[in-house]
Amino acid sequence: MSQTAADQAVLLREDRDNIAYLTLNRPNQFNALSEELLDALHSTLDAIAEDESVRVVVLAGNGRAFCAGHDLKQMRTQSEREYFQQLFDHCGQVMTRITSLPQPVIARVHGIATAAGCQLVASCDLAIAEEGSRFAVSGINVGLFCGTPSVPLSRNVGRKQAMEMLLTGGFISAQQAAAQGLINRAVPLEQLDEEVLKLARTICNKSRASIAHGKAMYYKQLEMGVEQAYQFASTAMADNMMFADVSEGIDAFTEKRPPNWQDR
Amino acid sequence: MSQTAADQAVLLREDRDNIAYLTLNRPNQFNALSEELLDALHSTLDAIAEDESVRVVVLAGNGRAFCAGHDLKQMRTQSEREYFQQLFDHCGQVMTRITSLPQPVIARVHGIATAAGCQLVASCDLAIAEEGSRFAVSGINVGLFCGTPSVPLSRNVGRKQAMEMLLTGGFISAQQAAAQGLINRAVPLEQLDEEVLKLARTICNKSRASIAHGKAMYYKQLEMGVEQAYQFASTAMADNMMFADVSEGIDAFTEKRPPNWQDR
Amino acid sequence: MSQTAADQAVLLREDRDNIAYLTLNRPNQFNALSEELLDALHSTLDAIAEDESVRVVVLAGNGRAFCAGHDLKQMRTQSEREYFQQLFDHCGQVMTRITSLPQPVIARVHGIATAAGCQLVASCDLAIAEEGSRFAVSGINVGLFCGTPSVPLSRNVGRKQAMEMLLTGGFISAQQAAAQGLINRAVPLEQLDEEVLKLARTICNKSRASIAHGKAMYYKQLEMGVEQAYQFASTAMADNMMFADVSEGIDAFTEKRPPNWQDR
Repeated sequence: MSQTAADQAVLLREDRDNIAYLTLNRPNQFNALSEELLDALHSTLDAIAEDESVRVVVLAGNGRAFCAGHDLKQMRTQSEREYFQQLFDHCGQVMTRITSLPQPVIARVHGIATAAGCQLVASCDLAIAEEGSRFAVSGINVGLFCGTPSVPLSRNVGRKQAMEMLLTGGFISAQQAAAQGLINRAVPLEQLDEEVLKLARTICNKSRASIAHGKAMYYKQLEMGVEQAYQFASTAMADNMMFADVSEGIDAFTEKRPPNWQDR
Repeated sequence: MSQTAADQAVLLREDRDNIAYLTLNRPNQFNALSEELLDALHSTLDAIAEDESVRVVVLAGNGRAFCAGHDLKQMRTQSEREYFQQLFDHCGQVMTRITSLPQPVIARVHGIATAAGCQLVASCDLAIAEEGSRFAVSGINVGLFCGTPSVPLSRNVGRKQAMEMLLTGGFISAQQAAAQGLINRAVPLEQLDEEVLKLARTICNKSRASIAHGKAMYYKQLEMGVEQAYQFASTAMADNMMFADVSEGIDAFTEKRPPNWQDR
Repeated sequence: MSQTAADQAVLLREDRDNIAYLTLNRPNQFNALSEELLDALHSTLDAIAEDESVRVVVLAGNGRAFCAGHDLKQMRTQSEREYFQQLFDHCGQVMTRITSLPQPVIARVHGIATAAGCQLVASCDLAIAEEGSRFAVSGINVGLFCGTPSVPLSRNVGRKQAMEMLLTGGFISAQQAAAQGLINRAVPLEQLDEEVLKLARTICNKSRASIAHGKAMYYKQLEMGVEQAYQFASTAMADNMMFADVSEGIDAFTEKRPPNWQDR
């Protein structure tokens, strides 16, 4: 793709040092998730899932905002219920593709993250935001209760906190988002890239196979009762012990030297 | 009902600007939830559910406390297990009636909220408390573990935080309640009514139908696994898109004018 | 057991004023959970479960740390998957034995609590830590994703907060642990024993039978949907009302005197 074409693409991908940087690139639409952008996200995530050179994904937005949710103008051109069902189904598939991806995904948030944009933050494994960023599930302001965003939101923050956001459509600050669990932390804008990179590099230094195995295990056990979760996690850990990286990791720890992962 | 009769009623209802103000009115008993008060709450909530003029419910207490839980004196006059089973069943039905109500319910908390009074706060969709208010599930102090209060409490706050309250019967402050997720926020007493009104009015300005549809969706998806929750929420949102208020809302947003909800 | 033998035991038990103090006693191994220590914990908890003189358990560690998790050196001497399956299964059984114990268990944390040591803190009903203590699920640093620790960890703290700990292996402070829900609170080291004792004594002053009944109820209802949880909790509370201690407790409350529990 030429530089010009890339600039016009709705989603940019740039890989550097085993980190795939995905950038939502509809700055004039506050990176609204048009059908095209959802398609691009889905296919790019599918490609990354198969790409062992990628160890971490960083998801960011171009322009003044992280993401303002669905593309209301595009939606307003449609009137069939079936269209919307497919749109929301697809959006949900993109969100759960983040969770099912072998690599951890870090949201790098600036400006605003609203409606499905807030859902995107909630769906990422990790999120770091600049201190001035704000979060809302604002659909109710146009008469549409943010139903699908409420799914990951209410699994990140408390019930009453999510409910207030959903019923009022109002913003919370980055500080509130951090205190409530929607993001990992808020940092000054000038430190945002540095903090995201530091977190990404820390994960890049781990065993790729164990990270992928563990991430999948983590989300599955969340939906089980404690007894079943223990059985599942215990089996997964015994499997993990058979990875060559674990023998190397323990030896390196015992010998006080850095591990030399086989599988990276 | 005459003013005198109203003053003697265990529950007061006053509607103003589409907000129904319910006031627990047993001030000398710290608004203890006697059978009569539970009955009054249940039937009033049932009536409000059918009343489309009510957009938000505010629940408060008269006198020095929000609510001190069950009426221990009344309970002590009974000795049959079957009586208590029915009492706790009924109390649980009142609590879940709040959740199943089409309209959002805001707890306006002052003084203390203990045992089933704390359960009432936990059961409301939203809660704002004055800074001096305190919360406890204090049944264990009289030998009775707050079992039913623990149901909504442990779905509002963390496990260890709920467990400490349940095992010790001790109070937490309004600030702790806010930090842990039991209430939305604590404000100075002199701002309490203003803050509650502001929150209620914000919700009154939304589409009634979408709020009711969304609230019901929200609590159902909370109990599902993520995949099932997405299917359910996606279908609910596609249904919501067919509401006339959504077309109006998106048009109003695009045209930068206030929406004129049909359904309010 | 002679004093010398006791000093060499991997787990120490000392009962005082109805509180059983269990001390992990492998200070030179940062109290790593060897097979022997897991066995000792399991059998000691089983014995305490039958011992009505014990009202509360306090779990602490000797030396510079609370607990550094599994014994990596011992693990490295093994290579069979079946061994590890049994090890992790057993560890999970010890953790859930804490939850199934009739008596509340308080973790008294100092220094570090890492991997299965952090899991131990997460598994206790309550936890108080000294301000300088730190928490990590650090298995990923040796290539082993902390799968079983993630089970109680992710039921104590938010998803993204747990995920960051699991993916990075990094430490969080006692203050962060308290804010996120992993512990009840952090206190200065010099107040740690006093705070733990105060909490333990508060629980000792309650009805033993009601505490045991309530604790079991609490963990079961956590895994149910709200409607089923209410049915279960309502039945449990009606049962609890039949305990002699409740009549005594309510009478004592009404008569403004301390209760004289029958069952303690």
